[in-house]
Amino acid sequence: MQSMLKVADRAKVPAFEVMNILDRVAQLRATGRNVISLCAGEPSDGAPSEVSRRAAEIHAAGTPFTYTPALGIRELREAIAGHYKRWYNMEVSADNVAVTTGSSGAFMLTFLTAFNAGDKVALARPGYPAYANILRTLGIDVIELDAGQESRYQPTVQLLEAAWREHGRLDGLMLASPANPTGTMVSGSELEELAGWCKERGVRLISDEIYHGIDYPEPGSEVRRSVSAWELDTDTVVISSFSKYWGMTGWRLGWALVPDDMLSTVDALAGNVALCPPAPAQYAALAAFTEDSYAEAEARVAEFARTRAAVLGSMGRLGWGESAPADGAFYLYADLGDQLGPHVNAAAYCAALLEAEGVAIVPGNDFDHVNGQHHVRLSFAAGFDAVTEAIERIVRFQGNI
Amino acid sequence: MQSMLKVADRAKVPAFEVMNILDRVAQLRATGRNVISLCAGEPSDGAPSEVSRRAAEIHAAGTPFTYTPALGIRELREAIAGHYKRWYNMEVSADNVAVTTGSSGAFMLTFLTAFNAGDKVALARPGYPAYANILRTLGIDVIELDAGQESRYQPTVQLLEAAWREHGRLDGLMLASPANPTGTMVSGSELEELAGWCKERGVRLISDEIYHGIDYPEPGSEVRRSVSAWELDTDTVVISSFSKYWGMTGWRLGWALVPDDMLSTVDALAGNVALCPPAPAQYAALAAFTEDSYAEAEARVAEFARTRAAVLGSMGRLGWGESAPADGAFYLYADLGDQLGPHVNAAAYCAALLEAEGVAIVPGNDFDHVNGQHHVRLSFAAGFDAVTEAIERIVRFQGNI
Repeated sequence: MQSMLKVADRAKVPAFEVMNILDRVAQLRATGRNVISLCAGEPSDGAPSEVSRRAAEIHAAGTPFTYTPALGIRELREAIAGHYKRWYNMEVSADNVAVTTGSSGAFMLTFLTAFNAGDKVALARPGYPAYANILRTLGIDVIELDAGQESRYQPTVQLLEAAWREHGRLDGLMLASPANPTGTMVSGSELEELAGWCKERGVRLISDEIYHGIDYPEPGSEVRRSVSAWELDTDTVVISSFSKYWGMTGWRLGWALVPDDMLSTVDALAGNVALCPPAPAQYAALAAFTEDSYAEAEARVAEFARTRAAVLGSMGRLGWGESAPADGAFYLYADLGDQLGPHVNAAAYCAALLEAEGVAIVPGNDFDHVNGQHHVRLSFAAGFDAVTEAIERIVRFQGNI
Repeated sequence: MQSMLKVADRAKVPAFEVMNILDRVAQLRATGRNVISLCAGEPSDGAPSEVSRRAAEIHAAGTPFTYTPALGIRELREAIAGHYKRWYNMEVSADNVAVTTGSSGAFMLTFLTAFNAGDKVALARPGYPAYANILRTLGIDVIELDAGQESRYQPTVQLLEAAWREHGRLDGLMLASPANPTGTMVSGSELEELAGWCKERGVRLISDEIYHGIDYPEPGSEVRRSVSAWELDTDTVVISSFSKYWGMTGWRLGWALVPDDMLSTVDALAGNVALCPPAPAQYAALAAFTEDSYAEAEARVAEFARTRAAVLGSMGRLGWGESAPADGAFYLYADLGDQLGPHVNAAAYCAALLEAEGVAIVPGNDFDHVNGQHHVRLSFAAGFDAVTEAIERIVRFQGNI
């Protein structure tokens, strides 16, 4: 009998090109091949040692981890509020802090609560593909802003106004600073301009700040953490996470700063769609806010900075084209330029590079389906030695094309 | 300036009555009052000791828990497949096992993948309220089957055909056996009839089996674990969890058996909406499948059985009306009958009981907004001593009305 069952169209998100690369990495490694993968958007060192130690202790004590409140344990919500005082000198009420199952959980709750099906949300292209994929799956229209180097690949009021003229009323703006895949940041004044424009038009600004704390101020510049959207407007939704700065990707713990008008809805919805964030991770993450844990995270950022300097110092030898200024996060996003050589696109270049030299990087198409065909993203989270060795191999590969 | 921002209608799920009860429990306990809460749908003992020990070890070793594959680590998918061999003598490929962030994560992925907005999914009322809330939030129409005692509060082909006549084509059926709040189960032949009806009409059957392993066969009956929908039809989606049988609610780890036609879509979607299930929990949960862990879980089921027997033995003294046969899970769902007394509804009864005797149970309205006004759900997961003491207090409360 022919099945009459269906798979819903809305669930069919595009497959990532990088999945083919990662499958091949696994195959090559299984044959004993030495492969350097610069694909992962995550630090490899794991959580601060105090967090791991705390986790070990609470499990060794046999703590029964039952459900927590849907928005997380009070102590953690307060600790996160304290983090905003520390970094941004900003008073945040723990009531507005929603602990979530990674930033992923925060995106799902936020998108469902802020937007109805048929609403329009603008975002920059290139960008993190999951934004658009989740939004479309929820029936929300995605308006892609074609953001190029002139705006550091970030949205601008000009791009937003052009989109508004073309598509009509926008309901939301998804912003990420530092961004994935480009690492670029908006300045405080740019953020202020964007937030003001959104506020004036009733556009909900959602600010992905998961890479905050990982940035590289120019020497001599005023050293200042990234600006949080909540410093400017508490009607925005700020989303962040323990994944990047604290290196806790697999723990699935993030949070949102939720505006007052969304709070009760997010609370009730969270209980239905997720019940609660992982309880052991919540208790362990309390130890992320100790001086030792901050110090460990800062040491890791210093290592990213050293690796980043090596990458930027190699741009001449790499001979690639235009690249995004890697203001923050741990990514270099670059046009391959003349080095694309005989390859039909970046995916083909990446596949050939992997076969020839055992170096894996991500084709730009995953982040920009229009202009990303000649781009690659290289993550320097893998560490100085791996990255500098990879660059040597890439240079050799390009010389041999 | 008046904000023009909105909160999306679709996100506004009804608040649970039990939240008022739980808030009051917290207040009373803060004043030093001895309160017995039989509200929680979770065992209070926590994970099997080997699971906690494994978790302690891997954290003590400082394991860096980075992202796992979106559908979970291979070893755990294989271990879950092995569990189906053990319990159901059924071959399940690890490829069809999707590890998820609790059963909640499995519901979200399944509903998004199986149904488009505007599709119709039938489910029994009374039922677990999150099914309907998530479905509606995703734009899926919920067709409530008014399931009464004559069908053990479970869907039947007759109810489904009546719904089909009234509402037109159905796209899905959400089934839970044992069910929450009633604890009732469908028999193997009833499940076969339902699955056959669904198959014939291209209706996707989603079988919530999170309470499997917690059931109470009549003495002398053929001892047989609950039947899994996958034994009958691998086009169904089976959803289960480490939360109930293994007592790991707060760990947020569940799984789905995903039919072949949904597999690649679920995989890609999971990477976007969740990235991966919590990594530490995945590694620790491997220890749930040891003989010691099964033995610990079975001992807990035996304790539930003892408590259940005490509850059922007290029904005469409680003087409540019609109650659902508590075939499995750890719930008694009953009409208060004459014992509702002067209270306007079950919520008022529950509030008064809490004030008078410090016993918290859940008003039925949370599970059945039509007929649940006079019902309550009592969870016997709190343990024999707590439950028997609570019954004495309820009897006293009712005598004093």
